[in-house]
Amino acid sequence: MLTLDKVYDAQRVLKDNIRKTDLIHAPALSDKADIYLKAENLQKTGSFKVRGAYYKIARLNDEQKKRGIIACSAGNHAQGVALSAQKNNIKSAIFIPSTAPISKIEATRKYGAQIMLVDGVYDDAYQAAIKYQQETQGEFIHPFDDIDIIAGQGTIALELMEQLSDMEAVIVPIGGGGLISGMAYTVKMLNPNCKVYGVQACGAPSMVNSLHEHKRIELPSVSTFADGTAVKLPGENTFKICEEYVDEVVTVSEDEIAGAILSLIEKQKLIAEGAGALSVAAAMFNKLPLEGKKTVCLVSGGNIDVNILSRVINRGLMKEGRLSDLTIELLDKPGQLRDVSTIIAQHGANVIRVRHNQGGKGTEINECYLSVTLETKNAQHLEEIKQTFIEKGYKISSTF
Amino acid sequence: MLTLDKVYDAQRVLKDNIRKTDLIHAPALSDKADIYLKAENLQKTGSFKVRGAYYKIARLNDEQKKRGIIACSAGNHAQGVALSAQKNNIKSAIFIPSTAPISKIEATRKYGAQIMLVDGVYDDAYQAAIKYQQETQGEFIHPFDDIDIIAGQGTIALELMEQLSDMEAVIVPIGGGGLISGMAYTVKMLNPNCKVYGVQACGAPSMVNSLHEHKRIELPSVSTFADGTAVKLPGENTFKICEEYVDEVVTVSEDEIAGAILSLIEKQKLIAEGAGALSVAAAMFNKLPLEGKKTVCLVSGGNIDVNILSRVINRGLMKEGRLSDLTIELLDKPGQLRDVSTIIAQHGANVIRVRHNQGGKGTEINECYLSVTLETKNAQHLEEIKQTFIEKGYKISSTF
Repeated sequence: MLTLDKVYDAQRVLKDNIRKTDLIHAPALSDKADIYLKAENLQKTGSFKVRGAYYKIARLNDEQKKRGIIACSAGNHAQGVALSAQKNNIKSAIFIPSTAPISKIEATRKYGAQIMLVDGVYDDAYQAAIKYQQETQGEFIHPFDDIDIIAGQGTIALELMEQLSDMEAVIVPIGGGGLISGMAYTVKMLNPNCKVYGVQACGAPSMVNSLHEHKRIELPSVSTFADGTAVKLPGENTFKICEEYVDEVVTVSEDEIAGAILSLIEKQKLIAEGAGALSVAAAMFNKLPLEGKKTVCLVSGGNIDVNILSRVINRGLMKEGRLSDLTIELLDKPGQLRDVSTIIAQHGANVIRVRHNQGGKGTEINECYLSVTLETKNAQHLEEIKQTFIEKGYKISSTF
Repeated sequence: MLTLDKVYDAQRVLKDNIRKTDLIHAPALSDKADIYLKAENLQKTGSFKVRGAYYKIARLNDEQKKRGIIACSAGNHAQGVALSAQKNNIKSAIFIPSTAPISKIEATRKYGAQIMLVDGVYDDAYQAAIKYQQETQGEFIHPFDDIDIIAGQGTIALELMEQLSDMEAVIVPIGGGGLISGMAYTVKMLNPNCKVYGVQACGAPSMVNSLHEHKRIELPSVSTFADGTAVKLPGENTFKICEEYVDEVVTVSEDEIAGAILSLIEKQKLIAEGAGALSVAAAMFNKLPLEGKKTVCLVSGGNIDVNILSRVINRGLMKEGRLSDLTIELLDKPGQLRDVSTIIAQHGANVIRVRHNQGGKGTEINECYLSVTLETKNAQHLEEIKQTFIEKGYKISSTF
């Protein structure tokens, strides 16, 4: 059973083994709420997961420790378990679907875990892990539906009570519900007036749907780039705790998550992964009644694949009119390219890439197209450039 | 004159007005040294500059405060001065060259400064600021060559003494030298055995050259994307202090700076600007004798334009073989595109963009080219794909 004593015990066990992460005041993120960020992306292994995993593993008895531990994860839980096992001198076997990003696999291997790559997706890896557990009798470490794991995550709330004793609301991302269960229970035990809000991605609203229906509902599929929260079915323990202690749950869209990631980069100099930015997205896009409230957004992790990060940034820049593809129809006669370049230069825009295509379906024989990728200052700047082209008689189209 | 008392006085004045930034253990950044990061990128305004500016401004007398303050900067100094003036209820006029990124101009305006946009580059803005100072008799706040400014930056060293009392080396970026002067003086006064190292970009080595020649040398031009350190001539005070207290200065290349920025993102979840990553680049690329040493890398700021960040990430990915442009010569006959797609899919690579060009100078009439932008796992993965194309008889070329 989850008790406050257990959360305090977890804090004692974790004290010298994890980071007490920074709480960062971030007034620029909202005009309405007074936002603080709990930076668990700066935690060891890049996410909060090591807290629960470490506490769970440290509490195993000698016999269990000798048999070793087993986990299945394509992400943060894998790294949290691997580091915790290493620090406790226990051998760990981590089952990872072969489709996982190589960066996460390598990070897990670095912590000394035995990596079991399984062809297929998460469910395939999970089946293999269960089979292996039956063979070896090792200890399977569940990613969220375990009281020790939940107590470990609850230690974040104890730190917050000390770092911002007058906080009025805390926003927490939800995947399987381990993190928010530990947080909500601990916060409500110590400060019942503080609101605890949960956030999921629109593409993976398993806990949101379950709480609305007052029973656990399994989603047929989940799709979100907040992959750390892509869970089809909430845990039994976590669902019960959330029903009792969480005030409200909301969802945010993929574009809102991307916008939050970009704001965290530009305004706070922090890298969040999709799941890690959910809380900030909920605050930025006014999903919750936070007016004037001292609000902590829990940034749960920062393990985002750099390729995806690059796409998030580009998409964000495009949405703000700071990066765009402009296609300009040219008459195929001399001087046109010079004229176009002059217009762009006069507006102080920066050309990143140029493509020149002659002919094509639906074009006259003497027409051709110039596609230009432009860096502009903002949407208005881009609009001014487009207007100039139109005034000079060019036909143009752009991606935004 | 710079004294330890002045640095302590600065610490007292700054106490409730700036953040005591986090010190983050970062063992993954080096196999040789034991690296810690002092995260001044998480400071208010996104850089350390607010420390010196705030102390300088707080110490002005009432008459000076009434006349207002003037500064000239395209970057972090502007924001540091603007916020400090706002907090002290003083009016500020900040001269900014019109070529500065709009994000930095807007950030400065947000802190309540009067923005004086000057057509041209930094020198033009500086001339305008000096003229304005003579007219208004306002107080000109120098970005680095000022004892109060230097004392303010020295407060970082006081924090480090407390956060890591047994540190053995600290690496500090150098622009005009204000930061390293405050740091080196304070460190050597309190712990003479701790090494103090300075780093500049290869494209702007003004302090490095000056220290080697034992006199201040002005560079004819500077060129680096670590724009916060693009200073042609070291300060008089800062040069003298560096000569006396800095152990060694080194330079790093633009690619090394970009590599450090990418590592900070992937491994530490932190955004550094070019200048902010200099210290990490020096450690990562073994420019200094750090073997086994507890070393603090000062990450001085995080105000990097997102467009530039996007390019840094893409460049880093290309260098690691994780993003590449592959050009494949096709015979212009049916089925070739399908065959190429199959090879790529079988290797588990991800296609980002495809361009198909028929003909062109130097090609046979029936040849055409397919350019594919690919996400791959690493350089070896890319190499395997290229080998398969070669084995199947395709002619290929790639950007890396």
